[in-house]
Amino acid sequence: MTNTDSVRIRVFSLNCWGIRYSSKHCSQRYAMIGDLLCKEEHDIVLLQEVWSEKDYLFLKKKLACSHAHSHYFKSGVIGSGLAVFSKHRIHDTFIYRYSLNGYPYMAHHGDWFGGKAVGMAVLGIGKLTANVYVTHLHAEYCREKDSYLPHRVVQAWELQQFVRHTSAGADMVILGGDLNLHPQDLGNRLLISYTGLRDSYLETDTFDGCEDGMTLIADNPFTNKKDLVPFEKGIRIDYILFKGSSKTDVFCDSMSTTKGSVADHPFPYSDHEALTAELRLESHTSPETGRDKKSKDQDSAAGKLAELVDIVTEARTEVKVGLHCAERMRYTAKRTGVMGLALLLLELAIAAVPWLALGAEQPFPSTSFYLLAGLCFAILLTTSTLYIFYTMELKSLQGAEDQMRLAVGSLQESLRGFPLAQVHNAQRKPPGGLNACDPEE
Amino acid sequence: MTNTDSVRIRVFSLNCWGIRYSSKHCSQRYAMIGDLLCKEEHDIVLLQEVWSEKDYLFLKKKLACSHAHSHYFKSGVIGSGLAVFSKHRIHDTFIYRYSLNGYPYMAHHGDWFGGKAVGMAVLGIGKLTANVYVTHLHAEYCREKDSYLPHRVVQAWELQQFVRHTSAGADMVILGGDLNLHPQDLGNRLLISYTGLRDSYLETDTFDGCEDGMTLIADNPFTNKKDLVPFEKGIRIDYILFKGSSKTDVFCDSMSTTKGSVADHPFPYSDHEALTAELRLESHTSPETGRDKKSKDQDSAAGKLAELVDIVTEARTEVKVGLHCAERMRYTAKRTGVMGLALLLLELAIAAVPWLALGAEQPFPSTSFYLLAGLCFAILLTTSTLYIFYTMELKSLQGAEDQMRLAVGSLQESLRGFPLAQVHNAQRKPPGGLNACDPEE
Repeated sequence: MTNTDSVRIRVFSLNCWGIRYSSKHCSQRYAMIGDLLCKEEHDIVLLQEVWSEKDYLFLKKKLACSHAHSHYFKSGVIGSGLAVFSKHRIHDTFIYRYSLNGYPYMAHHGDWFGGKAVGMAVLGIGKLTANVYVTHLHAEYCREKDSYLPHRVVQAWELQQFVRHTSAGADMVILGGDLNLHPQDLGNRLLISYTGLRDSYLETDTFDGCEDGMTLIADNPFTNKKDLVPFEKGIRIDYILFKGSSKTDVFCDSMSTTKGSVADHPFPYSDHEALTAELRLESHTSPETGRDKKSKDQDSAAGKLAELVDIVTEARTEVKVGLHCAERMRYTAKRTGVMGLALLLLELAIAAVPWLALGAEQPFPSTSFYLLAGLCFAILLTTSTLYIFYTMELKSLQGAEDQMRLAVGSLQESLRGFPLAQVHNAQRKPPGGLNACDPEE
Repeated sequence: MTNTDSVRIRVFSLNCWGIRYSSKHCSQRYAMIGDLLCKEEHDIVLLQEVWSEKDYLFLKKKLACSHAHSHYFKSGVIGSGLAVFSKHRIHDTFIYRYSLNGYPYMAHHGDWFGGKAVGMAVLGIGKLTANVYVTHLHAEYCREKDSYLPHRVVQAWELQQFVRHTSAGADMVILGGDLNLHPQDLGNRLLISYTGLRDSYLETDTFDGCEDGMTLIADNPFTNKKDLVPFEKGIRIDYILFKGSSKTDVFCDSMSTTKGSVADHPFPYSDHEALTAELRLESHTSPETGRDKKSKDQDSAAGKLAELVDIVTEARTEVKVGLHCAERMRYTAKRTGVMGLALLLLELAIAAVPWLALGAEQPFPSTSFYLLAGLCFAILLTTSTLYIFYTMELKSLQGAEDQMRLAVGSLQESLRGFPLAQVHNAQRKPPGGLNACDPEE
């Protein structure tokens, strides 16, 4: 291998838990985060849950010297909460808002108002281009009976689509954030298998941090122990993922997490642990290296492809469960709305009798009449809004299911060895993942 | 130039005007469209305003022999209305929903319910990969006082971002649809300049169709002549755009439109005219050809770059106008909501007086009391919903404005001749547009 360049890139990711007036010690923690970032001078900083733009601007001011370039991704009612700080120039940004993201009436969960999304920043690192993604998927509030699972699976599906389709021109891909997915969860497998991204924690030999790379731990005073059940010690749901391209190889030299407490401070940076990965990017001058690697990748491709078909099929099943649920909810909204309308018409009919037969006494006491009419109106308005909302949810779920069906068909066809596509892909696909054998791009 | 392949691809695009029970002769027109597509056997068919899935399924069945592959893009309440039919295998699909798309309370315009989006299909054409995009932007209802202009500019901005970022791996890019933009409109210039896409109508020497390539003409019995003012004869708002890559050149050999009437039929296919473009794709074996072209492109790059800076700046101004407008609307909603709340509290206070001073007479006739309370509630509910909606609109507009500011900065830097990026881009960017000199990917 003839390496011309070896670039070291330090990446930092943290869910800041930045809900003003609600998260504990919010402003003090932002000051601590700012100090840490100023001191450590990571190349790329990926932050989630920076819900207030004021906090982003505070960090931007504080990091003006260490991180000259930054971007705050705006979306939804509150914002996406996503921010990128970089020592390297940000040439371009793009945001993809997930089509499904919980329900507005679940206001206590708040995800819907956050407008969850994946933000992309195109960075120029020397002569190379890095596509950096930061995201935050819908939270999991109850693992046993997770009503948001179909939404999170669709988010993972859209995330892999977005990364796969937008990263073809990049020399290096980095994805960081709070995926709200355990390592073996369907969404995570879908993302990793489809994009060929590699998990820093699994790729490095030098790890310093919490047991099993956990990022939401019981030892953190801000975490709610109840939320972690049945995982006593904690869970790993924050990630830094990466991959190279046909022209570059990326390695993870070391990886670390914070451990629930910070020296000289009474409380940690956040309820999540911060992740730091040290990546090494090596670029080739000889295209042969790429080709060699490609043919090696092609050998193991069939197995990976078969696995991917299984994962997408599993995801499709999950989306179908969501579809049935959304259909049921829409039907309930429709039925309740029709009942509200019938009640209103009945009331009006009864009230109209004495009005038509002049002189007869009004059978309704007026208080009850107006209260009942108001109730009927409220029911009608609420159920109509819900009907529209569930219809949109259904369209998004059906859309994802259609795309998954098409993807499974295409993957199966390339598994059967569709000759033209195979030849074609062997010629043009970068290594470092299933893209190498996947005719989908 | 050593061409190994020359592939001919016929592309068809039509806004089908398929609003069931509202568009005139809807089912008869779908039958006519089906017959046409069956007979003509275009390689790629891009349809817009196929609002009902039933109509898509009707076409799918009818075109089963001629177009084995198809996809219907689902989005919003009604659907995106976008469909692709193809003779070539569709390997993958992806949909990007525009963040802004009118207002739900403008129900008579209906755009919001349509969930306007851009759909992408990755097609395998022989050994080559074509990224095919179909889209439909927000309609223009009043050119003189177009309150949707900022929304349409943001849609054009997001469209160019989506095309630019997802097409890096493609050998050929085709974009078809109803852009609701005149050729010299800001949104169109933004799209064309940033992506480097070329307009079939302008690129071909062999054109057969309406005067000036118009696609919404006064001669069509379905068009509303009032909507065309001040353009007496018609306007050109539907397009087929295309570009090649570093490995391929694409040419438009001929282009045609329907002319407002169909032989042997009493009415036309739609209120829009259908477009057909015959594209010729030539791939190189020698990479030198690409490089030669690239250096030529680089020569004219500076001028184009300066033009692009102007266009993005113009778009930014337009988005800022939208921002002011959305801020004003949100402020009005807030003020009205506060007034509703104050009125409700006042009423409750007055009603509470006799209740506290036992025995005193109730000053309110109960009918007025309940009517007023109901009115206050309705105002509160409506203004809260509007406040949330306008906040989301603001976030999207601010997000687009931020991205545009960043893009202008980056473009200006490369205009000043940022040496590393220039070298870098000269090495890796495909020709056929500003990508060749643009360090943003």
